[in-house]
Amino acid sequence: MLIALFPGDGIGPEIVTQAKRVLDALGIDGLAYEEGLVGGAAYKAVGHPLPPETLAIARRADAILFGAVGDPDCDGLERHLRPEQAILGLRKELGLFSNLRPAKVFPELAGESALRPEVAAAIDLLIVRETNGDVYFGEKGFRTTADGLREGYDVMSYNEAEVRRIAHAGFQAARARRGTLCSVDKANVLETSQLWRDVVIAVAAEYPDVALSHMYVDNAAMQLVRNPGQFDVIVTGNLFGDILSDQASMCVGSIGMLASATLNDSNQGLYEPIHGSAPDIAGQGKANPLATILSAAMMLRYSLGLSDHADRIEAAVARALASGARSPDLGGSLSTVEMGDAVLASL
Amino acid sequence: MLIALFPGDGIGPEIVTQAKRVLDALGIDGLAYEEGLVGGAAYKAVGHPLPPETLAIARRADAILFGAVGDPDCDGLERHLRPEQAILGLRKELGLFSNLRPAKVFPELAGESALRPEVAAAIDLLIVRETNGDVYFGEKGFRTTADGLREGYDVMSYNEAEVRRIAHAGFQAARARRGTLCSVDKANVLETSQLWRDVVIAVAAEYPDVALSHMYVDNAAMQLVRNPGQFDVIVTGNLFGDILSDQASMCVGSIGMLASATLNDSNQGLYEPIHGSAPDIAGQGKANPLATILSAAMMLRYSLGLSDHADRIEAAVARALASGARSPDLGGSLSTVEMGDAVLASL
Ligand SMILES: CC(C)[C@H](C(=O)O)[C@@H](O)C(=O)O
Ligand SMILES: CC(C)[C@H](C(=O)O)[C@@H](O)C(=O)O
Repeated sequence: MLIALFPGDGIGPEIVTQAKRVLDALGIDGLAYEEGLVGGAAYKAVGHPLPPETLAIARRADAILFGAVGDPDCDGLERHLRPEQAILGLRKELGLFSNLRPAKVFPELAGESALRPEVAAAIDLLIVRETNGDVYFGEKGFRTTADGLREGYDVMSYNEAEVRRIAHAGFQAARARRGTLCSVDKANVLETSQLWRDVVIAVAAEYPDVALSHMYVDNAAMQLVRNPGQFDVIVTGNLFGDILSDQASMCVGSIGMLASATLNDSNQGLYEPIHGSAPDIAGQGKANPLATILSAAMMLRYSLGLSDHADRIEAAVARALASGARSPDLGGSLSTVEMGDAVLASL
Repeated sequence: MLIALFPGDGIGPEIVTQAKRVLDALGIDGLAYEEGLVGGAAYKAVGHPLPPETLAIARRADAILFGAVGDPDCDGLERHLRPEQAILGLRKELGLFSNLRPAKVFPELAGESALRPEVAAAIDLLIVRETNGDVYFGEKGFRTTADGLREGYDVMSYNEAEVRRIAHAGFQAARARRGTLCSVDKANVLETSQLWRDVVIAVAAEYPDVALSHMYVDNAAMQLVRNPGQFDVIVTGNLFGDILSDQASMCVGSIGMLASATLNDSNQGLYEPIHGSAPDIAGQGKANPLATILSAAMMLRYSLGLSDHADRIEAAVARALASGARSPDLGGSLSTVEMGDAVLASL
């Protein structure tokens, strides 16, 4: 089984190194790795954030373990050369449309959240975000209005097939959890959302065991603060999912803890921490590697069929936290490597 | 001076009645009122959520005091007949583009927030949301893809003039407060946001005394949970402003407390609570009228030039809370009318 390692920018290399150490320690037979350049690092080396060699590795890999992309040096570049295009390009080229973002509080960390501990402790939700469509990938550009004004535009859209496949992903995830699904849209204003809602309702007929509800995105942003414990699975589009999943991650406490998976139809997947490249602390050994280590666990579970090993990693992370291991974002002083050590010691 | 009273649906009539009582108690000379039908109530009476008579009242009024629209009975109607079109139509027809949504915790209510009290207590921010453009008002509809699939689409756009005028509103608000402005966009993905950012940066040259920063919307949703006290004024587009202002309102505690103003170029304004029509509690005397009473105070200040009277209302609300007046959403048991009584007693 081939794993593509794409460390990327900023803290990416440091955190991917720790995840690789944990994978190595499991002693799994037949895992091979190929490393590739992505993001600002790739642009600086070869002139493109997602070079053809990297894309080729991604295509032949069973799974991609991804660090982070984003580099302030690249802010002035044309859009198609910016680091973010690496992640958007991989999602699109490999058809990675189902982005799973679980948010759950480790009991030891409930005190880290800005939410009251009893509100935070109740969080155990999964956001299923569509990542191949929406206003991210529609026609976009600059044009001139009839009055000669510069105008920027981006077309938001979803077709019924795109909504149907992510709706199935949402219902299946809900079925495997507590059986409730909340679909988030803005159907009172957007036709894209109206189609979304119609299709989700149609798909629901195939899942009579799942309780479906609908919520407007503004209300969802409110409810995620007021009472995040009410949610089991949330299914939503690319843009709303981007906003709500980051919000939910912060409700949990540190964004340094949250893993994610993005799958295509054949369960090939890209695994990455939700947080970004954090250029301000890059190379200083201050980054929390747990989100990446937990992403590696998701990879073993979803793309490689190695759930037992995934369980082992997750248990080791929980034990490391229980024994007091804390990086700076969690109010402690352990370095990136020491956090890796703590997980290895608990394995 | 003419005030249009548009109570609307659900709890709208109850809360507007209390705000009107408070206005009456101030004994201001020369205030006249005209009442109009909006929302589901208007649709049921005359077949349209924003009838021409209502629009005519709005046009000749100096300010509009608005309750809420939204009625589940209307869910199945075509989009242009739904209650929400009343508020969208008024914003568009009167050019009400600058939506001001202050969020500040009354010290007595810091314990109501889902955020830890010390995090909530630090909130004192203003969201300046554009409400005449964006994906709300672009071309939208249903079409068929090349493969024969149904597709919903909505065009997001902003031109330079639209961004310029809301940027000025943001900078001016920041100048009148603590002098810092955060512009929220998604410029790493959207060309609409790229134009937004370019124009905001250009306008900044006229406000050397205001410190400008930029934040991606996903990060802003995170920061509003992690440390909302960091924000002074946030300026953003229609869609992001919808989401972030509802999120911010819940950080404050009850959404029943938050007022808003939406102004046009001549300071004509629409004033409404941020919360909706709450059909589940309509007519039961459970609604908190404070957001509407505080909206009336904003009306006196921004559209009628009566700041002293606005101050009196706000002080009376603070005193009523300090004396323990609490509606059910604030953990108490006072009815809508009793909350109105408490404010009147403190005037
Ligand atoms: C980097 C950016 C383009 C990306 C997105 O908006 O999808 C990121 O925020 C994410 O959530 O993965
Ligand atoms: C009712 C709806 C159309 C409206 C909006 O999205 O603008 C509301 O949510 C608001 O924020 O005023």
